[in-house]
Amino acid sequence: MKIAITELRQKILNTLSANFTMEEANIIADYLLWADMSGNKTQGLIKMTGTEPLQSIKPQHEIKVERDTKLSQLINAGANPAPLVSGVATDVVIQKAKEHGFGLVGVHNYFSSNGAQAYYAERIAKEDLIGIVLCSQPASVAPFNTIDPLFGTNPVGFSFPTQNDPLVFDMATSVMTWYGLVLAKARGEQIPENMAIDNDGNLTTDPAQAMGGALLPFDRGYKGSGIGMAIEIMAGPLVNAAYADLEGEWGALFIAIDPDLLIDAEKFKSSCTDLIRKIKSARKKPETGEVRLPGERAQAARKEAEQSGYVVLDEAILKELGYN
Amino acid sequence: MKIAITELRQKILNTLSANFTMEEANIIADYLLWADMSGNKTQGLIKMTGTEPLQSIKPQHEIKVERDTKLSQLINAGANPAPLVSGVATDVVIQKAKEHGFGLVGVHNYFSSNGAQAYYAERIAKEDLIGIVLCSQPASVAPFNTIDPLFGTNPVGFSFPTQNDPLVFDMATSVMTWYGLVLAKARGEQIPENMAIDNDGNLTTDPAQAMGGALLPFDRGYKGSGIGMAIEIMAGPLVNAAYADLEGEWGALFIAIDPDLLIDAEKFKSSCTDLIRKIKSARKKPETGEVRLPGERAQAARKEAEQSGYVVLDEAILKELGYN
Repeated sequence: MKIAITELRQKILNTLSANFTMEEANIIADYLLWADMSGNKTQGLIKMTGTEPLQSIKPQHEIKVERDTKLSQLINAGANPAPLVSGVATDVVIQKAKEHGFGLVGVHNYFSSNGAQAYYAERIAKEDLIGIVLCSQPASVAPFNTIDPLFGTNPVGFSFPTQNDPLVFDMATSVMTWYGLVLAKARGEQIPENMAIDNDGNLTTDPAQAMGGALLPFDRGYKGSGIGMAIEIMAGPLVNAAYADLEGEWGALFIAIDPDLLIDAEKFKSSCTDLIRKIKSARKKPETGEVRLPGERAQAARKEAEQSGYVVLDEAILKELGYN
Repeated sequence: MKIAITELRQKILNTLSANFTMEEANIIADYLLWADMSGNKTQGLIKMTGTEPLQSIKPQHEIKVERDTKLSQLINAGANPAPLVSGVATDVVIQKAKEHGFGLVGVHNYFSSNGAQAYYAERIAKEDLIGIVLCSQPASVAPFNTIDPLFGTNPVGFSFPTQNDPLVFDMATSVMTWYGLVLAKARGEQIPENMAIDNDGNLTTDPAQAMGGALLPFDRGYKGSGIGMAIEIMAGPLVNAAYADLEGEWGALFIAIDPDLLIDAEKFKSSCTDLIRKIKSARKKPETGEVRLPGERAQAARKEAEQSGYVVLDEAILKELGYN
């Protein structure tokens, strides 16, 4: 059902105010609204529902900076909610890159997943910087040619400034998300073929068997497995987070690069805009409607929500939160 | 046939000495020998054969530094051979990262492709730095849902220092290489199914039709297409190189990150070593022999060549070069 965004924001802030300062609550609310307005229903308000709702998180300690250099910062999240810590990490990486041309911020000891990498990446590109955001996750993907889950679904987001909206793209490096398995199991549905293996390494369409087995890399091959491994390292060992583990302190890596290190920013943005134009005007496959850029559909949904002032949410979620 | 590596190196240096200084010739020879010793037969000595052999390149001008900051350098290759310029770029990116924790070097105006990204990435990781190397290429891959070739086969290489040999991984972001099409056409062979489309967007197994059409992204989907796009931008517009074009000044991007920006290098290397051990000891699929890490087979081939002092080369290549 439709709900006014200003009204929804106020309700979220009220809920969060029990455990968080108004500044913290606003950072978290910004993220949640962004995800739901983008139509990313698995990364938004749904995180405030269920058995471990975000607003009930009891942080271990405050967000702690464990290493700080001109170019970098390592943050211990203290099991605070990911949208809060990642919001702070994004601020820091932007500030470092604006000052020195490059920023690298690692976070470990998250309470939960980073959510949608596109949110943080987009914020970086809005500052005329290139953004790359990586996040590690509990082990659920079997490396190529193996059976045991060792890599997380390890998402990555890229963002590039243009003369218009930033070009933003994020993806999981698994062929489907863990949440997709949870949802299929809850609904008593099968998952599509060639997505997952059971504990013996046989392909399965049963989500419960898949949860006891492993998901496949997004290309079902060695290249996707290699990219998943690179993210496992850069959002794992590099940020002092867990790796190849089912339970542990998950991590993320935020990278911001000022294109001006190599080329005038205006020229870079102009070329990116031109490349987008070339992709959008390429001949399309007969069965395809409009050629959509990565992230374009979400961006359009967000704009529509902003313009109308309303966002569509699952009634069950609003009901559980007492927002209806 | 087998040829002694010391003898082969001397022959290569002799050939290159016609157009290059001994220092330049050594940089190029290092690369070529590395590729052939790795068993990467499409990126080694074969580049000295054919209609545009590497040793006959007439550079437009010397390698020029067009922008230089503490962290970065933009290099105009002057159409010098890629292995020469990329060797220099690798030296610079290592030096910058060792001094400041991060290095970013862009190159444009290459005469030819960068070859094997793993070579440069490995050199970076041998200095206890994380390496990422990207390279743009003539347009041959159609973005997801389109028919027109706009992205190159855009390879990427990652490397991570460990307590033993670096972990190195490179891949093209296309489902097969352009050279694979050239080879199939020359041999009168078909290519496998679901690799390429003809000029009308229909799947084809005819390499000639594919060369007039486009290759598919490595996962045949939007994720691989998105990664190909990110590389098109970072090794195109960001380094002032061509993009979405069949002919132009190709580019590459070299990134080096000191893990010490976030975590003690020894701890990082120890965790990477442990992750490798976990992957190698994972249960494997029944039909799989040994579980191989990305790049492991090439590394083993190289070690064997180093130990024996001999490398195996195609007799036709040796004959064409007068090395037999």
